[in-house]
Amino acid sequence: MAGSIFGSAFRISTFGESHGKAIGVVIDGCPAGLVIDEEFIQSELDRRRPGQSNIVTQRKESDTVQILSGIFEGKSTGTPLAMVIYNGDQRSQDYGHIADKYRPSHADYTYQVKYGIRDYRGGGRSSARETAARVAAGAIAKLLLAQQGVHIQAYVSQVGPLILQKSATELDLSLTESNDVRCPDPAMAEQMIDLIKAVRKDGDTIGGVVSAVITGCPVGLGEPAFDKLHADLGKAMLSINACKGFEYGSGFAGVSMRGSEHNDSFYQEDGKILTRTNHSGGIQGGISNGMDITFRVAFKPVATIIPEQESVNEQGEAVTVTGKGRHDPCVLPRAVPIVESMAALVLADHLLRQQMVKLP
Amino acid sequence: MAGSIFGSAFRISTFGESHGKAIGVVIDGCPAGLVIDEEFIQSELDRRRPGQSNIVTQRKESDTVQILSGIFEGKSTGTPLAMVIYNGDQRSQDYGHIADKYRPSHADYTYQVKYGIRDYRGGGRSSARETAARVAAGAIAKLLLAQQGVHIQAYVSQVGPLILQKSATELDLSLTESNDVRCPDPAMAEQMIDLIKAVRKDGDTIGGVVSAVITGCPVGLGEPAFDKLHADLGKAMLSINACKGFEYGSGFAGVSMRGSEHNDSFYQEDGKILTRTNHSGGIQGGISNGMDITFRVAFKPVATIIPEQESVNEQGEAVTVTGKGRHDPCVLPRAVPIVESMAALVLADHLLRQQMVKLP
Amino acid sequence: MAGSIFGSAFRISTFGESHGKAIGVVIDGCPAGLVIDEEFIQSELDRRRPGQSNIVTQRKESDTVQILSGIFEGKSTGTPLAMVIYNGDQRSQDYGHIADKYRPSHADYTYQVKYGIRDYRGGGRSSARETAARVAAGAIAKLLLAQQGVHIQAYVSQVGPLILQKSATELDLSLTESNDVRCPDPAMAEQMIDLIKAVRKDGDTIGGVVSAVITGCPVGLGEPAFDKLHADLGKAMLSINACKGFEYGSGFAGVSMRGSEHNDSFYQEDGKILTRTNHSGGIQGGISNGMDITFRVAFKPVATIIPEQESVNEQGEAVTVTGKGRHDPCVLPRAVPIVESMAALVLADHLLRQQMVKLP
Amino acid sequence: MAGSIFGSAFRISTFGESHGKAIGVVIDGCPAGLVIDEEFIQSELDRRRPGQSNIVTQRKESDTVQILSGIFEGKSTGTPLAMVIYNGDQRSQDYGHIADKYRPSHADYTYQVKYGIRDYRGGGRSSARETAARVAAGAIAKLLLAQQGVHIQAYVSQVGPLILQKSATELDLSLTESNDVRCPDPAMAEQMIDLIKAVRKDGDTIGGVVSAVITGCPVGLGEPAFDKLHADLGKAMLSINACKGFEYGSGFAGVSMRGSEHNDSFYQEDGKILTRTNHSGGIQGGISNGMDITFRVAFKPVATIIPEQESVNEQGEAVTVTGKGRHDPCVLPRAVPIVESMAALVLADHLLRQQMVKLP
Repeated sequence: MAGSIFGSAFRISTFGESHGKAIGVVIDGCPAGLVIDEEFIQSELDRRRPGQSNIVTQRKESDTVQILSGIFEGKSTGTPLAMVIYNGDQRSQDYGHIADKYRPSHADYTYQVKYGIRDYRGGGRSSARETAARVAAGAIAKLLLAQQGVHIQAYVSQVGPLILQKSATELDLSLTESNDVRCPDPAMAEQMIDLIKAVRKDGDTIGGVVSAVITGCPVGLGEPAFDKLHADLGKAMLSINACKGFEYGSGFAGVSMRGSEHNDSFYQEDGKILTRTNHSGGIQGGISNGMDITFRVAFKPVATIIPEQESVNEQGEAVTVTGKGRHDPCVLPRAVPIVESMAALVLADHLLRQQMVKLP
Repeated sequence: MAGSIFGSAFRISTFGESHGKAIGVVIDGCPAGLVIDEEFIQSELDRRRPGQSNIVTQRKESDTVQILSGIFEGKSTGTPLAMVIYNGDQRSQDYGHIADKYRPSHADYTYQVKYGIRDYRGGGRSSARETAARVAAGAIAKLLLAQQGVHIQAYVSQVGPLILQKSATELDLSLTESNDVRCPDPAMAEQMIDLIKAVRKDGDTIGGVVSAVITGCPVGLGEPAFDKLHADLGKAMLSINACKGFEYGSGFAGVSMRGSEHNDSFYQEDGKILTRTNHSGGIQGGISNGMDITFRVAFKPVATIIPEQESVNEQGEAVTVTGKGRHDPCVLPRAVPIVESMAALVLADHLLRQQMVKLP
Repeated sequence: MAGSIFGSAFRISTFGESHGKAIGVVIDGCPAGLVIDEEFIQSELDRRRPGQSNIVTQRKESDTVQILSGIFEGKSTGTPLAMVIYNGDQRSQDYGHIADKYRPSHADYTYQVKYGIRDYRGGGRSSARETAARVAAGAIAKLLLAQQGVHIQAYVSQVGPLILQKSATELDLSLTESNDVRCPDPAMAEQMIDLIKAVRKDGDTIGGVVSAVITGCPVGLGEPAFDKLHADLGKAMLSINACKGFEYGSGFAGVSMRGSEHNDSFYQEDGKILTRTNHSGGIQGGISNGMDITFRVAFKPVATIIPEQESVNEQGEAVTVTGKGRHDPCVLPRAVPIVESMAALVLADHLLRQQMVKLP
Repeated sequence: MAGSIFGSAFRISTFGESHGKAIGVVIDGCPAGLVIDEEFIQSELDRRRPGQSNIVTQRKESDTVQILSGIFEGKSTGTPLAMVIYNGDQRSQDYGHIADKYRPSHADYTYQVKYGIRDYRGGGRSSARETAARVAAGAIAKLLLAQQGVHIQAYVSQVGPLILQKSATELDLSLTESNDVRCPDPAMAEQMIDLIKAVRKDGDTIGGVVSAVITGCPVGLGEPAFDKLHADLGKAMLSINACKGFEYGSGFAGVSMRGSEHNDSFYQEDGKILTRTNHSGGIQGGISNGMDITFRVAFKPVATIIPEQESVNEQGEAVTVTGKGRHDPCVLPRAVPIVESMAALVLADHLLRQQMVKLP
């Protein structure tokens, strides 16, 4: 009820504040017998880590993950898998200047009213630092999905006004990790990086879009009515910090089409039933149909900026707020592994709900 | 786990197929002492009802709702409130021609693979008829919200390429119900109606967008991490049949902005803390901030069309499919009360979770 | 959260008051392809029905069940299965005399304080009439269990001071339904019936114990930590009206034993691992071990009695209360199918959680 | 679904194995503003700790608890409260002799079949060591309850055949902690301690009963139908390792009574509505009535014993098993704080569900 538990069959419970002792996650529902590749988990965290390139925040957090339970001789045992990441770089003194001010478009004001108390250091629980716990859990989900042949690939398809016009099928997604911005089109990636650097020079920030493709998903994931696969994916994405929108398949653009254009005709090939187009984004009636699942996630510009902004303090008095230091000029490059992780958690959950997980 | 239960503190469980005996809903968690206005519930169902105007499906369903439990001397008792709507117009014979065919962009194929059996009459459980149960439950939620001063108003802001450029604050939303398409701009409404009629003449369909504004929402609804208010609203909307996307506040358009433009500055007026702009859409850090909550929902063109379409049958053989009869050329006008209902369910749930419901 | 939903994979949501329009249940999670034997469901309700013999209440309720959804051509479709039982015998005028009085050991007082309103007719939601909905759902669960070879048999093993000393293995459980009290020992059954009749003549009531045996349960049902199989069985039984206690295997008597006597030694026979004794009651570490599952459930004497009792009214004034009419002198005979139903719901839930359900 | 999450409004998620790195718990739903007394939490763990007296296991575990999150300047913040206890005394080599054997009446066999893998060291997840996490969470719940004036006191009322005949009202419960066995009757305590020592000398074990009294509970906790207060208490108790039965109020003994004796008459005193007797155990219709809540919990003799026992190994071959070392001869003294903790978790959950928590 308090919002930090996600999933039903593959359930995760995250904890931790930006500047507390540690953050972490407990997974309740990971099947037994999964080989737990700890290096892979760490490598996923490294994709989300601050300081990984010069277009992200330069905070220094090593984000070293420890597995506390649920594993025996390298394999999951079916019991809760707990992972913890101790917080290193806790410069609490950095935050004295905003202790009683509400930063614009942050969660300071809403947390204060909701709880009557808040850990103002680095945003406390509202910090995107919480997503490191999701990436750790998502890495376990990815290991599970890999066993079933399911693969998730996200990439940056828009930064500010720079829009990648090519669709996933026209791109070589293996190039995604070849550049700092995680855009699989090298020319566009360069422009995006330049834009982010320019924005950073102004002490400002910029938004963007992450696109994602899921391949290898079997037919049958998702439930009628409320727990439609895309509804659960949507909630998962919208729960990521700074997310403002979600669409799948033809999305918002598809509304201008007529049914006769939009419908995806079925045909058979080599004993498999396929569709000629994929405006459905791989999901029909809320249930996966075996085609690639495609979706897009909008992220707003980060709220922390250097220029002085008008605001109020806890007493309601007019004050000015200035962002200090080490924020992300653009959250997109680091959002890519988070989007993948949340998608992996949703798919693992639905695979288990559909009783489709088989481990060797 | 099977997907037909929604909410945690105000939980609904819907049931029923398009051509079964009845559809309905059980609400577990409605507080005691709420005056249950049965006429209001019926009037909400009438806004969703087929045959209400000449731009929606002409199926004849009276959608008369009966309350079976949870009410005593006109008030809720705190125990489960069950409502049932018996299905009238069951022309099962209509469906013989598609019994073993997969209609393009419908749920026929995915249900068949998932369950190995499906009620093919009118789409069975995948039919949008299920949303009548949501509207009945949503009406109860609206009665609860009205007691707290919370009001939800949705309207059609796009049909196919026709886009209403005015924002909610520039419109007179009280005009929404004054025309058949539920667009509060009368001139645009006329164009939309003409377009829908033209599309219908072709036996085709068209998509669109519903926009919504929630006023009077107190500060503090929504939870950190996963159950953010907009994440739960997003899941609720995405669970509606034909929905393809959700965005709130600045949404997808906001990603092109810089943080310095996008941030909503706080100020105080008459003892209330407000923001000068509302790109946040009334939600910060996943928690309502007291400003109007705004969001948009994309609906694809209805999949049932008259022209012949290529498809396969259960044996995987190539067949053609033709839509017979009485479908909606555009789902948007009837989607308005459904969007409002789902929003009402989410808000009632979070009001209860936040322990903010007070009944006289 | 409001308490009328039970189960996680096989989830039921019950509704209805004693003297409202109807009671019923929605099952969310029944697998597709189960042959739904409607006569069997009705026969189970008939085992719980008032007026079935002359040692139970003589109220006239036919308890005719209707299936509203989730079934197609005689089989479950995987979508919610709703069942409704319309209330027939609604003599509301019977209850005027207790409208503002708190009957001793009933839920009148607690409901009034909790909700500020209550349907006083026949106890409203607190009436054991609600268990008819559980029996309907339990019948579906039994049909599912029968497919897996799991069988549940409950019987009356104690009425007041009359205690059946024989264990289940010494009894012919097929005799349970051969007499009105549902005790498989005919001689004891006669004594119990005589006692109940004597108690009824006094306008009084008497308690007792239901014992149960589950055969054919596979190894592996139940979860570590909180959702142990016996913990879920215990909650299920304790949620039945008038239940005061639950024990499994050696139960309360086992605490006097030493570990060396109590431990169940393993041995192998015909490739199956068995235990020589079964003090564990078929459950070890919360997980079924393949032996018979045995448990006992205590029921207090029904609170409605004819003799005048001291009490207070809503104003806190001293009053007297007299039970009118048609109550059960002993709830035990009718409790048998309810105990079986709740056990069936728990087992169906855990079979699905363990992914052990296979339908032809 | 996997069983390690408990509660709905005050939800805990425990993790950890007997001989893994650490055990711990995440609480999701602790209200903001609660003063977190870390010394109290540790003192509760010390009541459960091995080695606390010479009638419990002599294993050396310091059980030092660390709070990782959810706390700021000494108070809860409303966000998840994570606590971890690192495992010290990990003598894995101790367990080689039982690695492939199934110890009688342990969870070895059921875990192996359920998961295909198990951490055999000290019972892994099935070890009662997991209850340390519950006690840590229970301590937080107790702090919350203390603010509402609710107090829980458990004590040992039976060890083997030694039964404390006095009821709670005849005892001075403040003496409970004055002796090693936690029986508030000093003379009986001495006998119990002597019996436990004699049993230990034989390398054997013995069971017993914990009784509990909850005072100060407001009227209105618990929900109709399934989440009755005593049903949730029962599940909580039955989920504790070695628990075999639960009864509340008059329990199993009450079944022999007639309704006219068993009913608790209401009367008014000083504006409060009370009952003359309390066979209801403070709960009517599943909802607390303001009287003391009383219940009893049966614990079997610990399964680990020194004498050689017959069993089988993973290959199904006949083997003998001998308990080495440092087990509890009687779990009762250490069960007392666990029973209290589980009761505290249930009450905190229902107080929050009933929106009855008020913090200064």
